[in-house]
Amino acid sequence: MYPYKTLFDFTKSVFERIGLKEEEARQAADILMRAELRNISTHGLMRLPEYINLWKNRRITITPDYRVVHQTPSTALVDGGKGLGLVTAPKAMRLAIEKAKTAGTGWVAVRNSYHYGIAGYYAMMALKEDMIGISMTNANPLVAPTFGLHGMLGTNPIAVAIPTHRQPPFVADFATAPIARGKLDVMEEKGKTPPEGLLQDETGMPTTNPGILKRNGALLTLGGSLQTGGHKGFCLTAVVDILSAVLPGANFGPMVVPTLGYVKDKTGSEDKGIGHFFGAIRIDAFQTAEDFKAYMDSWIEAFRNAETIPGQEKVIIPGDPEREAEKINMEKGIALSVNTLYKLKRISEELEIPFI
Amino acid sequence: MYPYKTLFDFTKSVFERIGLKEEEARQAADILMRAELRNISTHGLMRLPEYINLWKNRRITITPDYRVVHQTPSTALVDGGKGLGLVTAPKAMRLAIEKAKTAGTGWVAVRNSYHYGIAGYYAMMALKEDMIGISMTNANPLVAPTFGLHGMLGTNPIAVAIPTHRQPPFVADFATAPIARGKLDVMEEKGKTPPEGLLQDETGMPTTNPGILKRNGALLTLGGSLQTGGHKGFCLTAVVDILSAVLPGANFGPMVVPTLGYVKDKTGSEDKGIGHFFGAIRIDAFQTAEDFKAYMDSWIEAFRNAETIPGQEKVIIPGDPEREAEKINMEKGIALSVNTLYKLKRISEELEIPFI
Repeated sequence: MYPYKTLFDFTKSVFERIGLKEEEARQAADILMRAELRNISTHGLMRLPEYINLWKNRRITITPDYRVVHQTPSTALVDGGKGLGLVTAPKAMRLAIEKAKTAGTGWVAVRNSYHYGIAGYYAMMALKEDMIGISMTNANPLVAPTFGLHGMLGTNPIAVAIPTHRQPPFVADFATAPIARGKLDVMEEKGKTPPEGLLQDETGMPTTNPGILKRNGALLTLGGSLQTGGHKGFCLTAVVDILSAVLPGANFGPMVVPTLGYVKDKTGSEDKGIGHFFGAIRIDAFQTAEDFKAYMDSWIEAFRNAETIPGQEKVIIPGDPEREAEKINMEKGIALSVNTLYKLKRISEELEIPFI
Repeated sequence: MYPYKTLFDFTKSVFERIGLKEEEARQAADILMRAELRNISTHGLMRLPEYINLWKNRRITITPDYRVVHQTPSTALVDGGKGLGLVTAPKAMRLAIEKAKTAGTGWVAVRNSYHYGIAGYYAMMALKEDMIGISMTNANPLVAPTFGLHGMLGTNPIAVAIPTHRQPPFVADFATAPIARGKLDVMEEKGKTPPEGLLQDETGMPTTNPGILKRNGALLTLGGSLQTGGHKGFCLTAVVDILSAVLPGANFGPMVVPTLGYVKDKTGSEDKGIGHFFGAIRIDAFQTAEDFKAYMDSWIEAFRNAETIPGQEKVIIPGDPEREAEKINMEKGIALSVNTLYKLKRISEELEIPFI
C-alpha cells in the first residue's frame, strides 16, 4: 500500500520533469490520482508511460497554443493545440461551467487533444456549482459497429454527475463498450476468460480470448449482437464519437491515431488529435437547486432501498462504489499492481525522480 | 395495404373528435403516422386506443394550461398541464430550437406530459435548421435496475438527429432497454421466444417468456447482467429518467403512473405526469454548418463502406432502415396488423368516424 501523498508527489514531479508548469502538473496528477483513489486503476498510474511516450514521440506539445476558436453564449469550440488532455480538458470544462453561469448551460467541444483520464473527473467539477456535469471523449478504435469486422470506434465513455442534498451525488462514469480494455488486459494476465458475447476475432467469429484485441479482434458494442440490442450500443458509441470528434473537427472513429502499439496505423491527422465534449447544466436554469436536490435525494433513496433479486444485497447507485473506495484508499493507501509498480520504477530511473 | 392519406385523415379525425383543434390534431396524427411510415408500428396507430383511454379516464386534458414556468437564455422548464404529449412535445422542441438560434443551444425539460410517440420525431425537427436535435423521455416502469427485482425504469428512449450534406441525416432513435415492449407482445402473439439474458421473472430468475412483463417480470437493462455490462445500461436509462423527470419535476422511475393495465399502480402524482427532455445544438455554434456537414458525410461513408463480418452485407447507418421504409410505405401503402385493424375499427364505431 502506498500513501496517496507519496504517489501524488511522484506523479506531479514526473509531469513537471517533462516540462509542465507547477499548476498544470498538479492538475494532471490530481486527475490520475483521482482514478487511483476511485479504484479505476485502468485510468490511473499505469497510464503514465503512455503520456510520457506521447511526449517523447512529440505527439503532444508541452506548451500548446490552447485556443477558443469560436463561441456563442452557451457554446465554445476549443483547439487544444496538441496539448496533454489532462491539461486541456479541465480548462475546457471550466469554460463550460462559466458559460452555464450566464446562459443557463455551457457546451464545449474540443479537438486536437489527447487521452484525458477518467471522464468522471470533469463531470464532477460541475457539482460544487450546483450544476449537472457531462463529459465524453472518443478514443482508440477497438469497438466494431454492429455487423462490422474491425474496431472502428473507441470505448467512448460518458460521465454524468448530478448534485444532491443529503445523499451523495449521482456519478455515472462508464465506457459505452461492454468491458474496458484494461479489464481484458488483467484477465489475460491472470488467465481468466471474459463472458461470451463481448468479443470477436479477426474473422468476425465470436471469441472469449481476452487478448484478442492485440490480434486484430474487436470489442462488440454494449448489448452485444443485434438480437440482444447491440445496435443500440452502436448508436450510443457513435453519438459520443460524433459529438466529441466530428463536431469540433477532431479525428473521428477509425481515423483516430492510436496510442496503442497493437492498433494498426490509422489515417487520421496528427494535428486533429482526439476530441472531447463537455456540458454544464445549471440546475436553477430549470427549478431551484434546493427543490431539485431534495427530489434527486428521493430518486436515489427509491433505488437504494429497492427490493433485490436473490443473492444480491442492494441496487448499486452510480458513484457509490467509487466514492467508498476513495475514502478507504485515502486512509489506508493505494495498492499498485506489480506491472504498474514496474512501470513507475522505470520512469523513476529514466527521469531521475526518486520513487518512494 | 392502406394508403398513407387514408390513415392520416382517419387519425386526424379521431383527434379532432376528442376535441383537439385542427392544427393540433394534424400535428398529433403526423407523429403517429411518421412512426407507421418508419416501420416503428409499436409507436403508431396501435397506440391510438391508449391515447383515447387517457382522455376517457381524464388523465389528460384537451385544453391544457401549457406554461413556460422558468427560463434562461438557453433553457426552459415547461409544464404541459396534463396535455397530450403529442401536442405538448412539439411545442417544447420548437422552443428549444428558438433558444438555440440566439444562445447557440436550447434545452427544454417538460413535466406533466404523457406518452409522446417516437422520440426521433422531435430530434428530426432540428435537422432543417442545421441543428443537432436531441430528444428523450421517461415511461412506464418495466426495466429493473442491475440487481433489482422489479421494473423501476421505463424503456426510456434517446433520439439524436445529426445534419449531413450529400448523405442522408444520421438519426439514432433507440429505447435504452435491450428490446421494446411492443416487440415482446408480437413475439408472444406469434409464439416466438426472445434471446436469453433480456428478461427476468417475478422472483428475479432469468426467463425467455415474452409475456413475463404481464406477470410481474421485468426487462433487464441494455447490456444484460453485470458481467456483460448491464450496469452501464442502468446508468444510461437512469440518466434519461433524471434529465426527463427529476430535472423538470415529473414523476420519475417507479413513480410513473402507468398507462398499461398490467403494471401495478405506482405512487406518482397525476399532476406531474411523465417528463421529456429536448435539446437543439446549432452546428455553427461550433464550426460552419458547411464544414461540419461535409465532415459528417465522411463519417457516414466510413461506416457505410466498412468491411463486414461473414454473412452480413453492410454496417447499418442509424436512420437508414427507417428512411427507406418511409419511402416504400408512402408509395405502396402501410400494412396494419390484424390486432391494430381491429382496434381502429372499434374506435371508428365508438367515435362514429368512418374507417376506409
